[in-house]
Amino acid sequence: MFQITFHPGARKISVNEGENLLQAAMEAGIHINASCGGSATCGKCKIILLKGVADSPKHPKLTQWEYDLGYRLACLTSIHGDMEVEIPIESQVDHSVFDLKKDRGLQKYLLSPQDLYQLVQGWDIDPPVFKRYIQLEPPTLKDNVSDLTRLTHGLERQHGIEGISVDFRVLLKLSRMLRESQWKITVTLVLTRKGYKLINVEPGDTTRQNYSVVFDIGTTTVSGQILDLNSCVVVACPDGQCDGSTLFALAEASEYNGQISYGEDVITRIVHSQRPGGLKKLQEVIISTINKILQELLEMSRIDRSLISHMVIAGNTTMTQLLLGLNPKYIREDPYVPTANFIPPVRAIHFGINVDDHVHVYILPMVASYVGGDIVAGILGSGIFQRETLTLYMDIGTNGEIVLGNKDWLASVSCSAGPAFEGAGIKFGMRATRGAIEEVNINHRTYEPMILTIGRTKPIGICGSGLIDSVAGLLETGLIDPNGKFRRNLPTDRVRQGPDGYEYVLSKKEETLIREDIVLTEIDIENLIRTKAAIYAGCKVLLESVGLSFKDLEQIIIAGGFGRHLDLEKAIFIGLLPEIGIDKFIFVGNGSLLGTRLLSFSRNLLKEAERIALMMTNLELSNHPSFMNEFVAAMFLPHTDDLAFPLVTGRLHGMKKGDQELRVMS
Amino acid sequence: MFQITFHPGARKISVNEGENLLQAAMEAGIHINASCGGSATCGKCKIILLKGVADSPKHPKLTQWEYDLGYRLACLTSIHGDMEVEIPIESQVDHSVFDLKKDRGLQKYLLSPQDLYQLVQGWDIDPPVFKRYIQLEPPTLKDNVSDLTRLTHGLERQHGIEGISVDFRVLLKLSRMLRESQWKITVTLVLTRKGYKLINVEPGDTTRQNYSVVFDIGTTTVSGQILDLNSCVVVACPDGQCDGSTLFALAEASEYNGQISYGEDVITRIVHSQRPGGLKKLQEVIISTINKILQELLEMSRIDRSLISHMVIAGNTTMTQLLLGLNPKYIREDPYVPTANFIPPVRAIHFGINVDDHVHVYILPMVASYVGGDIVAGILGSGIFQRETLTLYMDIGTNGEIVLGNKDWLASVSCSAGPAFEGAGIKFGMRATRGAIEEVNINHRTYEPMILTIGRTKPIGICGSGLIDSVAGLLETGLIDPNGKFRRNLPTDRVRQGPDGYEYVLSKKEETLIREDIVLTEIDIENLIRTKAAIYAGCKVLLESVGLSFKDLEQIIIAGGFGRHLDLEKAIFIGLLPEIGIDKFIFVGNGSLLGTRLLSFSRNLLKEAERIALMMTNLELSNHPSFMNEFVAAMFLPHTDDLAFPLVTGRLHGMKKGDQELRVMS
Repeated sequence: MFQITFHPGARKISVNEGENLLQAAMEAGIHINASCGGSATCGKCKIILLKGVADSPKHPKLTQWEYDLGYRLACLTSIHGDMEVEIPIESQVDHSVFDLKKDRGLQKYLLSPQDLYQLVQGWDIDPPVFKRYIQLEPPTLKDNVSDLTRLTHGLERQHGIEGISVDFRVLLKLSRMLRESQWKITVTLVLTRKGYKLINVEPGDTTRQNYSVVFDIGTTTVSGQILDLNSCVVVACPDGQCDGSTLFALAEASEYNGQISYGEDVITRIVHSQRPGGLKKLQEVIISTINKILQELLEMSRIDRSLISHMVIAGNTTMTQLLLGLNPKYIREDPYVPTANFIPPVRAIHFGINVDDHVHVYILPMVASYVGGDIVAGILGSGIFQRETLTLYMDIGTNGEIVLGNKDWLASVSCSAGPAFEGAGIKFGMRATRGAIEEVNINHRTYEPMILTIGRTKPIGICGSGLIDSVAGLLETGLIDPNGKFRRNLPTDRVRQGPDGYEYVLSKKEETLIREDIVLTEIDIENLIRTKAAIYAGCKVLLESVGLSFKDLEQIIIAGGFGRHLDLEKAIFIGLLPEIGIDKFIFVGNGSLLGTRLLSFSRNLLKEAERIALMMTNLELSNHPSFMNEFVAAMFLPHTDDLAFPLVTGRLHGMKKGDQELRVMS
Repeated sequence: MFQITFHPGARKISVNEGENLLQAAMEAGIHINASCGGSATCGKCKIILLKGVADSPKHPKLTQWEYDLGYRLACLTSIHGDMEVEIPIESQVDHSVFDLKKDRGLQKYLLSPQDLYQLVQGWDIDPPVFKRYIQLEPPTLKDNVSDLTRLTHGLERQHGIEGISVDFRVLLKLSRMLRESQWKITVTLVLTRKGYKLINVEPGDTTRQNYSVVFDIGTTTVSGQILDLNSCVVVACPDGQCDGSTLFALAEASEYNGQISYGEDVITRIVHSQRPGGLKKLQEVIISTINKILQELLEMSRIDRSLISHMVIAGNTTMTQLLLGLNPKYIREDPYVPTANFIPPVRAIHFGINVDDHVHVYILPMVASYVGGDIVAGILGSGIFQRETLTLYMDIGTNGEIVLGNKDWLASVSCSAGPAFEGAGIKFGMRATRGAIEEVNINHRTYEPMILTIGRTKPIGICGSGLIDSVAGLLETGLIDPNGKFRRNLPTDRVRQGPDGYEYVLSKKEETLIREDIVLTEIDIENLIRTKAAIYAGCKVLLESVGLSFKDLEQIIIAGGFGRHLDLEKAIFIGLLPEIGIDKFIFVGNGSLLGTRLLSFSRNLLKEAERIALMMTNLELSNHPSFMNEFVAAMFLPHTDDLAFPLVTGRLHGMKKGDQELRVMS
């Protein structure tokens, strides 16, 4: 056994001879960025060898200069002695982004309570999991029915609740509790498709303390909220409806999905799940992330764990199957089949979620292998399923899912866009955390960039919004042509020949935190174009499959972390989003979490969620006849079809002609 | 630690200084009879000290002669050194009675298939847990619904089964199994009040192998059967109904309830359950008995454990609560309240029952603290709930429960008769096992007895039927008067003064296996009179509560082990049963097991069982105004009311007059 010490933090682990450094770090819960999951393709898992020797070949993603400085790829490093390694800042995960108070940008696009309440119509505050206080007459010889019968009769008479079934575990404590609490107890009931079920009893009156926790399990980020299910009771509810503001969460917390150590996207996770013990490990890791967030929520809200009655979870299909321990193997293999779209309620402790044993997890129903419960929750939360008018819903996170429809029909596609917006496939790409370049403006005369980073620190890399800004800027200034290739005759040393071809220097090494130039390469730009082309083509094919086009859209809803820092005009400028009126776009933030929140409060929305999942038709793009044509047509900036982007095209032509200084589309 | 060796078998256990011998034996699973559960009242837990010394005072139930021979009561013995003890035959439990082949008497009163089918009308062979084979089309890109959706659609289309919910555990193996079995699987479904539930999937076609196990959990005896749920399919079913003979069990096995080491009746069990760890121990012990019987059933029928799909269990309320781990404390305390009468289905492995994890236990619903699922099963199996005419159902086992009614109403009482028929409270009383005196005839001239024992061995003691025979004989011959007191002036040395008062010598020590005289004392007779008076008074009060009397009865059904060896005429002669026509009595054997068997085969009877439990009104005798009067009136042989027993009374008067030799009632 050899000892490996990781800096910063001097965390020590013991490993066997010949083990892989990245695997060993994963096992020990030490995170090293690895978009590709350790298959030696992304080049992100850089570490610096401080002491000891290691068998670690040079990889093309490392420069000779880096290699000489001790940089190695962890995934290529096998251990043959004690070592000390440093995980440099660009290989670390920065959790500070989840500190809501520090991230001023986070609330930018969140909905106001009024917006929220206008978004989804016609639901009542009537939580599916609720408590009722009941006071029973003690038994006598003339009235000695069983304790359970006494209780169910009481619930019928005092609360009008009939046809109750009971969880067996309630019986184990019922008789003693009734007597110890002088026949005054609080019951927790859940309304399921099959009627009421009694899931818990507590002594005395605890009806005022009834809480739900909801989670959105993203491939990259997991977010949770804790909700007071009585929040409506304490305010006035005119017209039997509730003031939307009462639906605010008591606390919200997010963390990276612990699985990011095992790869950036769902495919690398599925690959890892097929290794021996892989599925179990990935399940443990996500449960551990959930428990961590839960703990934070309880601390922030100062609520006792035992008062949580309900749990709602939404996630994409792969994340859901990994959470539940269902092998996701067939999600990845043609013809892409999930195990189940509708998951029966399961007790949370079955999975190791740290709540009382009566709490059941309600899993949002799913639609297909790449259209999951997060999308169903988003559609629910955004109210599309209730509207007459046509809406397009886009959730561009680690994957890209798009839904089109109205109250009568819904259709979806999933674009295997690749997580370029999360930094994957981009040389200096990174997630939107501290040190990520999030805004870029390029001077059209000097070609010099003006950059802003998250946290306003020296830059470490570039995130999704910075990438879109950069490409829009490069295009606008003519530094690249509509194919995404650099024009080489312009008077600037920012464009240069690099090891991977031509590149644009966004930040020089003396200005960066990583002691090297941060550049954007032609390969990076090509990857971004692929991603934006897949999304645009996905939208187009979806619309055409029902005989419609972008102009028929009443609204485009943008959900997900992607929307947070996005500059709409620039997204349209590069052809990621269609050129339609800016006022037709709306950002809903985490639409999935919004849906889970609504579900905790309203039992009639449970049925709606199932209706949405059943109603939604998924279009498989992989075998769709026109998708490839549309994709190729969109592999151009903004698009090969000038007529689809008249304003952008006009502006580009104007700029080519030369002497006017124009603000794009303003 | 000291070592105790038990003979026969030389079983060794290690115990701490000061421990109680009976408790230590119980803990180690070594059985010593102890009707009273170890409270030093019954005097049954005799052991013989062979080596070593023990602190063990002499108890009045031991004669000086016995004490000098080394007899001690285990419950009074504390351990202070190594010991060797013998458990004499009268303190052992004899399992050979459960060897069906050896017990010729067992089948005596069993119903013929024709009887069975005439008893309960209008039920179809349609098991609530059933299998269906299904062959699915593999998914394609054009048809890539989830595996579960494919399966449920297939079940709808191929079998017309709709609205299926699914057990989460099925999902864990579904996807892989579908592919490995080329999309050909067998599903196991259960029909509940809330619709169909998918509980298991198996590769290929296993529909021909679908078995159920049923259990009757008695206080003394546990019986089980294994049933082939397809037995109807392989025979012709004219008129859509099934030949009753196909419902025969593949195998039947019985064992003593392992809890008998902790006391004879439900009260001593409840007392034990209140000790630290007592409830858990009693639950373990009954589960272990069930697993033992299950193992025997599987071996006898040569069926693989994994092919069992269903389990039905009936028991009295205390046995059921102990099985489920529900504290029975309040069953015993006024006002005698059970935790629940309707138990939701629970997975059998939850309790440690050794079947596959998809098997659920269906527990027969109960009526009250002393009228349990065994009675509901008996009423179901005997068809009373379907008849126009008035029937009385008596189940006299360790307790006595009586039900009166027809298709419109049912009423029940429970008589705290005390388990005299199982041997408790009777000096030489024992269960109906090998060596028990089961038939007694007393010569009316010589007053000499003629006895027959079970197994035709030398006698060890006397069981219920022997007791009734003896008292009838003593009464008939005038050896006792109608108060149960010995007439002391008769010319026989069989009646004598013993240590407990007057007694009748049934068997002299040179003829017995226990090397002492087997006698029947006045105290024994008084105990029997108490028991028979409680039962008779219970019946009478039950009838009077609805304004009826014995003459209104169309039929009396006698269920339970009690009926097995009972001589009806003698039972009437002592006033245990009412004097009505012999042809109105019918024996159904184990009515409870019969009911569980029917439930395994017929889903519509599940609803009937619940209807029976809801419909049955229980009369609490402990606070009933006329019960005590009726009880006192019945404390006489046959009864204080001559008019109720005209034939018996006439015969007794005739005999008093002297010289005729009469056969009773023939």
